Amino acid sequence: MTQLTSSDGVLEVARRARTAATELALATRAAKDGALIAMARALREQSAEILEANTIDVEAARAAQIPAGVVDRLRLDEDRVVAMADGLLEVAALADPVGEVVRGSTLANGLELRQIRVPLGVVGIIYEARPNVTADAAGICLKSGNAVLLRGSSSARHSNTAIVSVLRRAAVATGISEDAVQLVPGDGYEPAKALMRARGLVDVLIPRGGAGLIRSVVEESTVPVIETGVGNCHLYVDADADLDQALAVVLNSKTQRTSVCNAGESLLVHEQVAGTFLPMVVPALQAAGVTIHGDEVFAKYDAVVPATAEDYAAEYLSLDISAAVVPSLDSAIAHIRTYSSSHTDAILTRSQEAARRFTAAVDSAAVLVNASTRFTDGAEFGFGAEIGISTQKLHARGPMGLLEMTSTKYLVTGDGHVR
Amino acid sequence: MTQLTSSDGVLEVARRARTAATELALATRAAKDGALIAMARALREQSAEILEANTIDVEAARAAQIPAGVVDRLRLDEDRVVAMADGLLEVAALADPVGEVVRGSTLANGLELRQIRVPLGVVGIIYEARPNVTADAAGICLKSGNAVLLRGSSSARHSNTAIVSVLRRAAVATGISEDAVQLVPGDGYEPAKALMRARGLVDVLIPRGGAGLIRSVVEESTVPVIETGVGNCHLYVDADADLDQALAVVLNSKTQRTSVCNAGESLLVHEQVAGTFLPMVVPALQAAGVTIHGDEVFAKYDAVVPATAEDYAAEYLSLDISAAVVPSLDSAIAHIRTYSSSHTDAILTRSQEAARRFTAAVDSAAVLVNASTRFTDGAEFGFGAEIGISTQKLHARGPMGLLEMTSTKYLVTGDGHVR
Repeated sequence: MTQLTSSDGVLEVARRARTAATELALATRAAKDGALIAMARALREQSAEILEANTIDVEAARAAQIPAGVVDRLRLDEDRVVAMADGLLEVAALADPVGEVVRGSTLANGLELRQIRVPLGVVGIIYEARPNVTADAAGICLKSGNAVLLRGSSSARHSNTAIVSVLRRAAVATGISEDAVQLVPGDGYEPAKALMRARGLVDVLIPRGGAGLIRSVVEESTVPVIETGVGNCHLYVDADADLDQALAVVLNSKTQRTSVCNAGESLLVHEQVAGTFLPMVVPALQAAGVTIHGDEVFAKYDAVVPATAEDYAAEYLSLDISAAVVPSLDSAIAHIRTYSSSHTDAILTRSQEAARRFTAAVDSAAVLVNASTRFTDGAEFGFGAEIGISTQKLHARGPMGLLEMTSTKYLVTGDGHVR
Repeated sequence: MTQLTSSDGVLEVARRARTAATELALATRAAKDGALIAMARALREQSAEILEANTIDVEAARAAQIPAGVVDRLRLDEDRVVAMADGLLEVAALADPVGEVVRGSTLANGLELRQIRVPLGVVGIIYEARPNVTADAAGICLKSGNAVLLRGSSSARHSNTAIVSVLRRAAVATGISEDAVQLVPGDGYEPAKALMRARGLVDVLIPRGGAGLIRSVVEESTVPVIETGVGNCHLYVDADADLDQALAVVLNSKTQRTSVCNAGESLLVHEQVAGTFLPMVVPALQAAGVTIHGDEVFAKYDAVVPATAEDYAAEYLSLDISAAVVPSLDSAIAHIRTYSSSHTDAILTRSQEAARRFTAAVDSAAVLVNASTRFTDGAEFGFGAEIGISTQKLHARGPMGLLEMTSTKYLVTGDGHVR
């Protein structure tokens, strides 16, 4: 009975989203930007309402003895609300992808063919903890002409409800349907499952969160899914690497921010430079607080923990790194093919030939030469806004900005053409 | 026991495909074209082997009293084998999509960013009856650097086995792995199901066939699917249509070839021109052998069958058409939104305003103005080869050529860049 009710509620919001998407697909850039600017202003002006709701979530999380790191990601303050508002203004300033002509030609028979960008339609986002995703995802979807269905974690429910309420009131005041931005109602797993089964009403689902969440969405969903985010990112220090540069890049990849999907998680070192590089990198990583899970060569150093296959497959998201010495570039590539999550892998080398071989053979969303893995990011790539980083090959791969939130359609114009 | 064995066999060919895909992704255009040309020559030279195998399938189909139309699609002759060979030569002549730079820029910090096309990897094709799909799909996949797993219908098993055997021998003689082209082994539904569940080994599944096949693949598959082909295509004759032109286009859409997904299936006529156009179109369609399933206005004519909601939703693929008179452009759009399969819908009008409104509001893979729906086709669009017509919005929409068989990856080159 409860299941039936919650599924019905999900289908009802999905139907409203479909109707809103139909209108939104025809909205001008001016109308969409007007709504985004109004939404940004409303977040700033009504931050008290949001912070009050957030306090309820944070106190409940503390009472439930949720880990401090998770509580911190859940917590909002005036600065974080202002950052959400600024994010919406940045999205408003970006070009509108809808209507862009991707390809066009006049065919031999005189038919005029154009492939133009159109919104996907209704986008479902299933995400964990951080309430700022609520405003970010709403902004990117609205700008790209999509209605969004947001399914945040129950721990952030009061915060997400308040944010969405503020955004909807602001949108509708500018003439954009409030159903362009909706929370998926109901408690527990059933509503998420109903969302995953709403094929025909929902055009794409984007899960953002841990590997378990993503796997369950992929398994359960009949709606097309874009997998995001799991990053077991490798750094390979080649025989021809500039070792000082390599050291800086390895440290930056691993330690600049540890809880993100583009952080370095595994270090491979060519055996020709291991004798020089390991005495540099092991103490430097350890001085930065990093625990090294190493093979037998690394394990000769103090405080290096012996690595298992699980370590090489791990996305630690912490001050841990797996490490191994490899006999060749090709064995580095083979190791990466075996263990990489195909998010981001980097080579450090001065050799053009090694860089060329590595970038051709490593099949990941981003392959970097002499740069920190931390650069795989929509903002760093200049996309202006990012809805996630796709680790799959279909539709979008790597950081997803506004373009990746669109489909296309063909417009064909003739003069009574028949075959 | 049988299930286990057949699934194991599927996983084994999928693993071999994965290995072949790794090599194929690095193959030069010259190597791939060399293989395609050798495959074309082998089809011509070894046509006797293929025709002999085909005779077994055709006789079995006849004995099983399969409808004559299906038997005809199954039948090969010397001309059809030559056509398959010519198809491979045409694919060889097309540009190689792999390595194309889609986007590129130098970021403010000096990082060089390039987004380049790469193969998808392993492509599974599940298809019905026509054995020529075997060679066509193999050619398109090979050219785009993908290994292909082919699952044809059991009625074409001898033909498909012979074709694949000829293609594999020809490929391997030119140095391309024979595992680039493989049949999925085993009988019945289990092998297809194992293919649908081989996420991680198979990158995308493309079902080609009837609505039932496509629905079951979408429901069962954890591998990403590209939906193809169901076409309930509409022709809307606007108040401002050139009625002689409209008549020619309606007849061409409906009757030039009826068994294809881009054939016209439903006719909508603005009430302002119904009095003039119905006396033109009803007898013309009927003279061409078409049965009209019409609303009450159409039903006033002799031999028009009253239409039900099922008729308006139907993809007939036969000499049948549903038909209705509508009071306005907007009600035509609303009708199409309700019943269209989002493949191809056309407006016949001389009004710029009506064309603009229709093309913006109708959310289909192809929206045509004053042209026959039969033009939604890879060859007609100038793609040179087509693996199917996507009716979904993710990854590819409309006719899919070589570009649609690729993904991308980002190559980022720095000089020790850190964040």
